Amino acid sequence: MYRLVTELFPICRSITGKGVRETLALVQERVPIDIREVPSGTRVFDWIVPKEWNIREAWVKDPAGKKIIDLQKSNLHVLNYSAPIHATLSLGELKHHLYSSPEHPDWIPYRTSYYNNNWGFCLPHNQLLGLSEGDYEVFIDSSLEDGHLTYGEHYLRGETEVEVLISAHICHPSLANDNLSGIAVAAFLADHLSKLPLKYSYRFLFIPGTIGSITWLSLNESEVCRIKYGLVFTCLGDSGKVTYKKSRRGDADIDRAVTEVLKNSGEAFEIREFSPYGYDERQFCSPGFNLPVGCLMRTPHSQYPEYHTSADNLDFVRPEYLADSFTKCLAIIEILESDRVYWNLNPKCEPQLGKRGIYSQVGGQTDGKSDELALLWVLNLSDGKHSLLDIAERSNLKFSAIANAAQVLFDKGLLRQDRST
Amino acid sequence: MYRLVTELFPICRSITGKGVRETLALVQERVPIDIREVPSGTRVFDWIVPKEWNIREAWVKDPAGKKIIDLQKSNLHVLNYSAPIHATLSLGELKHHLYSSPEHPDWIPYRTSYYNNNWGFCLPHNQLLGLSEGDYEVFIDSSLEDGHLTYGEHYLRGETEVEVLISAHICHPSLANDNLSGIAVAAFLADHLSKLPLKYSYRFLFIPGTIGSITWLSLNESEVCRIKYGLVFTCLGDSGKVTYKKSRRGDADIDRAVTEVLKNSGEAFEIREFSPYGYDERQFCSPGFNLPVGCLMRTPHSQYPEYHTSADNLDFVRPEYLADSFTKCLAIIEILESDRVYWNLNPKCEPQLGKRGIYSQVGGQTDGKSDELALLWVLNLSDGKHSLLDIAERSNLKFSAIANAAQVLFDKGLLRQDRST
Amino acid sequence: MYRLVTELFPICRSITGKGVRETLALVQERVPIDIREVPSGTRVFDWIVPKEWNIREAWVKDPAGKKIIDLQKSNLHVLNYSAPIHATLSLGELKHHLYSSPEHPDWIPYRTSYYNNNWGFCLPHNQLLGLSEGDYEVFIDSSLEDGHLTYGEHYLRGETEVEVLISAHICHPSLANDNLSGIAVAAFLADHLSKLPLKYSYRFLFIPGTIGSITWLSLNESEVCRIKYGLVFTCLGDSGKVTYKKSRRGDADIDRAVTEVLKNSGEAFEIREFSPYGYDERQFCSPGFNLPVGCLMRTPHSQYPEYHTSADNLDFVRPEYLADSFTKCLAIIEILESDRVYWNLNPKCEPQLGKRGIYSQVGGQTDGKSDELALLWVLNLSDGKHSLLDIAERSNLKFSAIANAAQVLFDKGLLRQDRST
Repeated sequence: MYRLVTELFPICRSITGKGVRETLALVQERVPIDIREVPSGTRVFDWIVPKEWNIREAWVKDPAGKKIIDLQKSNLHVLNYSAPIHATLSLGELKHHLYSSPEHPDWIPYRTSYYNNNWGFCLPHNQLLGLSEGDYEVFIDSSLEDGHLTYGEHYLRGETEVEVLISAHICHPSLANDNLSGIAVAAFLADHLSKLPLKYSYRFLFIPGTIGSITWLSLNESEVCRIKYGLVFTCLGDSGKVTYKKSRRGDADIDRAVTEVLKNSGEAFEIREFSPYGYDERQFCSPGFNLPVGCLMRTPHSQYPEYHTSADNLDFVRPEYLADSFTKCLAIIEILESDRVYWNLNPKCEPQLGKRGIYSQVGGQTDGKSDELALLWVLNLSDGKHSLLDIAERSNLKFSAIANAAQVLFDKGLLRQDRST
Repeated sequence: MYRLVTELFPICRSITGKGVRETLALVQERVPIDIREVPSGTRVFDWIVPKEWNIREAWVKDPAGKKIIDLQKSNLHVLNYSAPIHATLSLGELKHHLYSSPEHPDWIPYRTSYYNNNWGFCLPHNQLLGLSEGDYEVFIDSSLEDGHLTYGEHYLRGETEVEVLISAHICHPSLANDNLSGIAVAAFLADHLSKLPLKYSYRFLFIPGTIGSITWLSLNESEVCRIKYGLVFTCLGDSGKVTYKKSRRGDADIDRAVTEVLKNSGEAFEIREFSPYGYDERQFCSPGFNLPVGCLMRTPHSQYPEYHTSADNLDFVRPEYLADSFTKCLAIIEILESDRVYWNLNPKCEPQLGKRGIYSQVGGQTDGKSDELALLWVLNLSDGKHSLLDIAERSNLKFSAIANAAQVLFDKGLLRQDRST
Repeated sequence: MYRLVTELFPICRSITGKGVRETLALVQERVPIDIREVPSGTRVFDWIVPKEWNIREAWVKDPAGKKIIDLQKSNLHVLNYSAPIHATLSLGELKHHLYSSPEHPDWIPYRTSYYNNNWGFCLPHNQLLGLSEGDYEVFIDSSLEDGHLTYGEHYLRGETEVEVLISAHICHPSLANDNLSGIAVAAFLADHLSKLPLKYSYRFLFIPGTIGSITWLSLNESEVCRIKYGLVFTCLGDSGKVTYKKSRRGDADIDRAVTEVLKNSGEAFEIREFSPYGYDERQFCSPGFNLPVGCLMRTPHSQYPEYHTSADNLDFVRPEYLADSFTKCLAIIEILESDRVYWNLNPKCEPQLGKRGIYSQVGGQTDGKSDELALLWVLNLSDGKHSLLDIAERSNLKFSAIANAAQVLFDKGLLRQDRST
């Protein structure tokens, strides 16, 4: 995963354009995703797919003719979606088009102007302060023309058409944690799942933020009813604890499954209530959809100083945190795949477990073993109303212990699976 | 308001009689309230409107013939509703008719005997201890005759007939906080609201405690279904923190609106659960009515030592606390008046706020501004099920921020008001 | 109760056999219980009533021919339900049949093998460590033959056929707290209640654990719908605080009644959520029955070191703790018997209590007395929806205060009892 992050890092991305296509091509080397192209001007709900933006060169020369800002050095240097320009301006005029971050004076901030015609450069605040009076030559060789919005989609067919949605935004330029980390974890998860038998179908979206999810929802409006669980992946490579932001519903099964995994991880974690500010869960959880989609991250966006600056680089993301995020995603999916509702076929009193060889043969011992306890909990609550996840929550036993117990009981003919759930 | 309190303070009030009429006349100088007179003997639910009580003179002379207790000095000195008497008694006989408070030996307690024929005097405990043996002359020139129960009512017609009820008891004699403070805040609020455009109609009651609300409810039984919100005002002038006792329902909109105001006041406050002991909310919240009426106060009755004694005087109530209570009442009414339910007209994904000029034009900044957050919350929860108050509670943003955001969105044509709520 | 415990202590009990009959005979000396006999081989749900086990003699002789383990000294020495044997074995072979507890090396553990054909001896771990190599003679003169499962049942008919179930297990040998304490409290409670007028009918079960409750439920399946409240009694004689494990429902009236008693006891207590591990509540709360049956105990089984060892002896149980458990059971039953739902016949405003002589005649005093407060709470919540227990919970007043207030109001003609509940 970290290698994919390093390969993706240098590309100058935006919500449309060649950078997006190059990004998806690198993902395609790992997973056979489909590439979709939606024409500029397409109406998608309240929005219109914008013109495609491409950029070749962008620099500022100081009064002495020396290039002091150059897209070649960092693709954060240009205000994303800048219109083309070639002009000479006084420092005063130029400053209206310069963006810096006084709180972090040595870092280049990341700024965009997708829907407002503008041009500009981003630079460290200390550099801005050092600029002397005089005439500056600015050059941006960009184009904003009819073209396409490009995104990637990958569908893994499981036993049923009921779907798990995983979405990662791909529009940010050289920002490693936000969101090359999310792209990498999603790609490797797709590859990993493709080798497993799956109950649910999985849909992975590699889309530009906001306009990408709006476009996808607009084109797939009639299909979203199949989505039973969903996760937006972002900021999955930093050293912070794992954070989960719940879906708008607040008690969706995905919210409970993620909580179960984090609670039993033995590590620090944080569960946050839904808020309509964030990434593409904003769209998936808009009131007209209200999909059960939460957001999985480590340190949440805007809560680490490196966020949206040149310091969100390849040092900020580490392989071990990507791996940890990946492992937790698998644990979540393990719950989604194995959760179900059973009926205890001997609901009146306990069945005799001893004669089936699954209960201690010597009685009177001073405490129930936890695997026997799991058997008793599954039997007690398998009344067609409680899922295994419900039972894990109520018993305070791990989901895996409950699922194993259910499997043992099912194999012994003591449970029947509920078909209606 | 404090001036009104000082004007009202000397009057000898009870649940009926001239003191009540003088009190209402002083209120009428500020607000054009209607005066109602209900004849003694009128049956009101399980009660009967009592005879009218008036008193002219009351004193006790010691064995030396010196007036040692005199109604002229404090109208707390007489047991309220005392029958007339003129007699000479030994100290032992007299003591059966003397009331004092050993815990506060220098204060005169306030005692009543409305529904039990009796007479008596109240005095400081230290004075009681100092009485010597001998014959005492007692004289009470009072009358208990068929007459009327008098109360004041003021109705402000708003856009709709749906009502907000504000009730203050007017039966206590020279007790400043309980409840001249409540009368003053209610009167000034009525005057203030009369100058504003109002969505709801407002009904102010200036009534004797218990029998007054029972009488009013009995006479207006078929109208109370219009009451959507209600507050009983009492003890609003002392220095304590504001305390709100919830309605019997516990989760009525008035309970939530008051909580919202107090929570965001930046000051200490207390929210109490309903209890059937207290003031007229006891009647409004009786099970046959169960109206959404809470009780707003500062230090609750019986929880300050001065309560129901001569120490609840003009020093105990201060203008600044009356003003603070008034301000908070206005803030509560502001919520009642502006709370409503909207429908987001673009429920599928977010509408594009940037093109409407109500969203930041430069993207990538590190945190959502709170006014943008309020816009997003209103859009996300305006699904016909959540009121602005619901949204304020869930978002933890101030109601005013939510209401402002809703107004902006409504003005931009992005919301429709729900007519059914 | 303690005398009954001492009489029962020496008997060698198991889930069937003469020890059970002797035990029930001693109970019968106090309460006229019915003795039921269910033949071996009877199918009871997923189980079969086992053969009857009886034992006369059991010992181990060391290589020198000395009896080192002897059933005569403690009936815990034999693995309960041991098959007969007479053999000579090496120490190594013998050890496969010896049970000890390394954590408590001086105590004999209690072990059983009801449903797995086996034999064995239990002994202190220190004794086990001291055994030298050599040939050991083992002798168990037991029989496992067709016979009966025996249990006791006692039914007290109240005004209605709606039932309170009290169940105690009787299968453990010389273990005083588990469960001679439960048997004694149940027996004395049955005797005490027989002298009182009762609203509900009471059914007391003295049954072997697990197989006993399964057998009883199987034979009485169509009758259990009458059970409105139930308690399993166990470990009621030790010095620990009273602990209550809720029924599977978690909010059954029995759960709330026990909580009410313990909360107002002024002593430490613990309320635990339901778990399917424990005593016969496991069967009563199996999903096909889901009866409102909780488990009342002092220190829960397996949470005191003496549990299921020879240290659970006559010193471990004390008369004062038995008495305290008994008193709390009576307080619980007092609530069950007196809880009901009333309708306030004057639901609109308060009725005038003063004229009925049940309210303070002198007004203005600084706080409501708690008995007046109880009257007001009962009137306020007697709307056909709240039981007295509901009112006690909401008001934070004691159930007894609420019940007394309701009786006063009922006697004054102010309440009507709800017949439908």
